[in-house]
Amino acid sequence: MNTVIETILNHRSIRSFQDKPLTREQIELIVASAQAASTSSYIQAYSIIGVTDPSKKKKLAELAGNQPYVEDNGHFFIFCADLYRHQVIGEMEGKDVIPSIESTEKFMVALIDASLAAQNAAIAAESLGLGICYIGGIRNNLSEVGKILAIPDRVIPLFGLAVGYPNKVTDKKPRLPFEHIYHENGYSIEKYESQLKDYNEVISSYYKERTGGKRTDTWTGQMANMLEKQTRIYMKEYVEKQKFNKQ
Amino acid sequence: MNTVIETILNHRSIRSFQDKPLTREQIELIVASAQAASTSSYIQAYSIIGVTDPSKKKKLAELAGNQPYVEDNGHFFIFCADLYRHQVIGEMEGKDVIPSIESTEKFMVALIDASLAAQNAAIAAESLGLGICYIGGIRNNLSEVGKILAIPDRVIPLFGLAVGYPNKVTDKKPRLPFEHIYHENGYSIEKYESQLKDYNEVISSYYKERTGGKRTDTWTGQMANMLEKQTRIYMKEYVEKQKFNKQ
Repeated sequence: MNTVIETILNHRSIRSFQDKPLTREQIELIVASAQAASTSSYIQAYSIIGVTDPSKKKKLAELAGNQPYVEDNGHFFIFCADLYRHQVIGEMEGKDVIPSIESTEKFMVALIDASLAAQNAAIAAESLGLGICYIGGIRNNLSEVGKILAIPDRVIPLFGLAVGYPNKVTDKKPRLPFEHIYHENGYSIEKYESQLKDYNEVISSYYKERTGGKRTDTWTGQMANMLEKQTRIYMKEYVEKQKFNKQ
Repeated sequence: MNTVIETILNHRSIRSFQDKPLTREQIELIVASAQAASTSSYIQAYSIIGVTDPSKKKKLAELAGNQPYVEDNGHFFIFCADLYRHQVIGEMEGKDVIPSIESTEKFMVALIDASLAAQNAAIAAESLGLGICYIGGIRNNLSEVGKILAIPDRVIPLFGLAVGYPNKVTDKKPRLPFEHIYHENGYSIEKYESQLKDYNEVISSYYKERTGGKRTDTWTGQMANMLEKQTRIYMKEYVEKQKFNKQ
């Protein structure tokens, strides 16, 4: 164990922030940390948008499902998959890069690149005593988000990262057991159900304790309820409209 | 600046490792760190496969384009997008989760989840004095990789993470300028080309210095050459065969 791993293991999502903006120095350090992450073949297929304009933050909070911490935080970052600059590069260099950047492979590369960068940003922020919360809710309506942020083709806003000084520190939610997530030398499905049932007991106890017995959900119950509903069904079409994932 | 941010900023990919396996304790700490990452709506849509079997590592190294560090390292992790457990959950709970888990939205969720976890693993490993290298090369032939690792439907191996004691520490490659990656309140394309030209000069100098003048590539030149070739064109079909990204 060391300070770095302590910071990582101590993560919890923060959903209430003090009214205190990040300094320029903090923002630059967080972005530099994001950029230090590995990138597939040096492609750097992402961009980060910092949103400080109060009216834009307000609109984004509404679109994300009225989450107040999208509006009220120290800084709001949006991580985007980005192959727009690679289109520009193709034009600069006189090479046809279009079939490549419109492929499912490069869609995956851009998502992975953006996510590795974001997690570095998250850890860097937490190491500075700040709290973070990822905001997948911005994917509720990416066309509207795109208008607010002037998003061009070949760019997809993937998620927000709300950062700020925590108002209230919450509990850590227990993760799936090690043996369920980690396989050795091959994928093993043998004990899948029994592991999930054991995990359900951990989760029920966790909710019972936190709510004085009011909540008794299991993890599999939660997941089944969530996944029974289809959400963001426009995504395949949107992603293709942005000229990703086409071939 | 602090130890965590120093670790993050000090990252470089390591491609030569000592012949010294990671301990079980190190592996567990790295996986626990991965699991501590944020996960979209608690979905935990990834798995990690540790490969220690020498014959499997040898085959994976060949498939990844004969990269010796896939075979020779302290431990080889493979991070997978995983919605297989959510299929099992649907069956356990008697709910139809299939349309949801086959959507492009959930494909993105699984990729993002797996990548956030992987970057925590990478930083944790580096904090322990280990070096890391992401291996996108396993995507060269995912059907064969799938056979070696008994990958079921609804699981996609995304990339490897080779970890071990570094033999040789390499240089850090300069990233795109802050102003090019980071936009404020909206995406800005105004200075795109001039920023890329300035960055090209940084990259040319970097290569010149490292190679005594032999290499003088620019970044846009490298990218255009790489992207002119289509690679892994089977990916869209493969991803759908694995029952992701279908609707």
